Amino acid sequence: MARKEFQVTPYEVQGNIDYDKLVKEFGVSKLTDNLLKRLKKHTGDLHFMLKRKVFFAHRDLKWLLDEFENGNKFFLYTGCGPSGPIHLGHLQTWKFVKWLQDKFDVELWFQFTDDEKFLFKDKSYDEIQEWTKENMLDVIALGFDPKKTHFLIDTKHSGLMYPEAVKISKKITFSTVKSSFGFTNENNIGSIFYTSMQAVPAILPSVLEGKNIPCLIPLGIDQDPHFRVARDVYPKLNFYKPSILHGRFLPPLVGEGEGKASTSKGNNNIFTTDSQEEVENKIKKYAYSGGQNTIEEHREKGGRTDVDVSFQYLRMLFEPDDKKLAEIKGKYESGEMLTGELKDILIEKINTFLKEHQEKREKAKDKIDEFIYKP
Amino acid sequence: MARKEFQVTPYEVQGNIDYDKLVKEFGVSKLTDNLLKRLKKHTGDLHFMLKRKVFFAHRDLKWLLDEFENGNKFFLYTGCGPSGPIHLGHLQTWKFVKWLQDKFDVELWFQFTDDEKFLFKDKSYDEIQEWTKENMLDVIALGFDPKKTHFLIDTKHSGLMYPEAVKISKKITFSTVKSSFGFTNENNIGSIFYTSMQAVPAILPSVLEGKNIPCLIPLGIDQDPHFRVARDVYPKLNFYKPSILHGRFLPPLVGEGEGKASTSKGNNNIFTTDSQEEVENKIKKYAYSGGQNTIEEHREKGGRTDVDVSFQYLRMLFEPDDKKLAEIKGKYESGEMLTGELKDILIEKINTFLKEHQEKREKAKDKIDEFIYKP
Repeated sequence: MARKEFQVTPYEVQGNIDYDKLVKEFGVSKLTDNLLKRLKKHTGDLHFMLKRKVFFAHRDLKWLLDEFENGNKFFLYTGCGPSGPIHLGHLQTWKFVKWLQDKFDVELWFQFTDDEKFLFKDKSYDEIQEWTKENMLDVIALGFDPKKTHFLIDTKHSGLMYPEAVKISKKITFSTVKSSFGFTNENNIGSIFYTSMQAVPAILPSVLEGKNIPCLIPLGIDQDPHFRVARDVYPKLNFYKPSILHGRFLPPLVGEGEGKASTSKGNNNIFTTDSQEEVENKIKKYAYSGGQNTIEEHREKGGRTDVDVSFQYLRMLFEPDDKKLAEIKGKYESGEMLTGELKDILIEKINTFLKEHQEKREKAKDKIDEFIYKP
Repeated sequence: MARKEFQVTPYEVQGNIDYDKLVKEFGVSKLTDNLLKRLKKHTGDLHFMLKRKVFFAHRDLKWLLDEFENGNKFFLYTGCGPSGPIHLGHLQTWKFVKWLQDKFDVELWFQFTDDEKFLFKDKSYDEIQEWTKENMLDVIALGFDPKKTHFLIDTKHSGLMYPEAVKISKKITFSTVKSSFGFTNENNIGSIFYTSMQAVPAILPSVLEGKNIPCLIPLGIDQDPHFRVARDVYPKLNFYKPSILHGRFLPPLVGEGEGKASTSKGNNNIFTTDSQEEVENKIKKYAYSGGQNTIEEHREKGGRTDVDVSFQYLRMLFEPDDKKLAEIKGKYESGEMLTGELKDILIEKINTFLKEHQEKREKAKDKIDEFIYKP
């Protein structure tokens, strides 16, 4: 059977993604055991997303660790495109970022790309501003340290960001963004300029401090093209190229082959604001099962964990304990555990997480101002 | 003899400009006697640049005067691209703007497009910042009222301007800027976005006041394409289209057929920082003469004021007195006045102006802060 065509840019993730092919196409490197060992020296343990290759590839991580070991601390940079509710795919990256911040005790610059979402989506400016506020609550609820975490909102911080974006933009042609992002002559001119704004946080702390500071960007691999373009520019402006850690996509509920979990695909995702009932209903109704057609057949042949979305959500996000995960895997693959039972485990995990998250999210409403960067 | 091809965009002014053709191409209207009469009702007299059709065309001036007569005061918006010293061509527009501000007693928003000049010129960011400061001195020296004059510097005011530029940019495609400005795929992405920034000051006071305020933009006609594009966008964002007054170009010293006076053409312009000797030398050496080859021939046939650059400088900028200008014209055309004598009149005029201007320019150094807009 011919593989389905796939496409990965910041503006389109479609099809059954061949991550090995992507690594080659994008020119990134897979994380090696050696690199993971070096990381572990500093973190004490390895996050399960690293052990399980959820974060699986990188750019210049070796350099970043060299710098770190020479006393040149890095900062973290990640972000959020605020155009709708936060789904579990977002949380995957951000929980990993939180772990990195805690383990390395470093600053985090968190960009909310409200300009981007306004320019690329058929939504009003005000609507995007509302989502920006909403999405901030989810980030804060994850427990980032407000003293070390700085929110940048592109439009609100444009006084700081635009002058740097202008310098970057001078070194990028329309030809380049056309081929990197699949743009056409009918793209609006804001969308064409935008990648310059996404490039800024990787150098902004260096600009503010007046010295070069290494940067580590954990991201979903669809965001890599922005930095593939910008990394050619930074050295021309006498800045370091940032190091990048690439994550796989949490699959949408209907399973791999449909790209990535996405804000614009309603029932195909769990949102952080979903009720307990909605979570239960969505998982039971939509989560693609690796089980067999009948109980008898399942007991006999067992289920496939590699395609089962509930198992993948446990593996990628909700079951950090390797032993417990192995147990579930064994039972499901042997047929001892049915799909319904597997789904119940996931529902319980998600709902326990969301109950606490939603409480913290409510409390976060008073904390937004602490997180917004004040120049 | 075939007419030389000409081209007029904000980024290229070349050839022997056919202003009638330009009026048609750009879709602007010539100033009629009726409109001038209406203007005069409010200003008491007509500026010589209006009487002499230096400012010769417009967009929506009738609407602007209707609004004004209904008690809806407008504000003025003009600007400067800071990439080198100020020449007499700049002063032509700004002196006219000053007259409008005085006569109508209105606010003036003065934009310094430092981002544009950085993006379009082979100059460093710091160099452009230096020119921005230098150019401000010339504007201040002209005597604008600091209480009613607000400098906007694109990069410094990007916190205010970028969010509005983003809204404008969403409604402009690359196809549009490609055809309006002659861009190619090799243009940098900052230059492609830039027209959105130039569009902002025409609506910024309305944004700040939370109500629609009419805007009048006096400009050299090469800047019209920016607003031809933006005027399609403003109503979509519920703002008025601005009214525009279009000026002809002060010719370069070597005469018409060479486009417009320009910062990048050294000896072809008089700069505000030129010494008395430099002015004398440039006019004597480079100012294209409408006179005859020999004194005898000149006495017999007379000179041509229509192509004589010295006469045009007097007509367009340095001799407001119609009677005196007519006298000079008569004498030069009859052959009574030689080119050298005509040049001496102009040199005297320029140097008298520059002596005072340079003193005021020096004093302006302490006044910059008064003029920079504080949100």
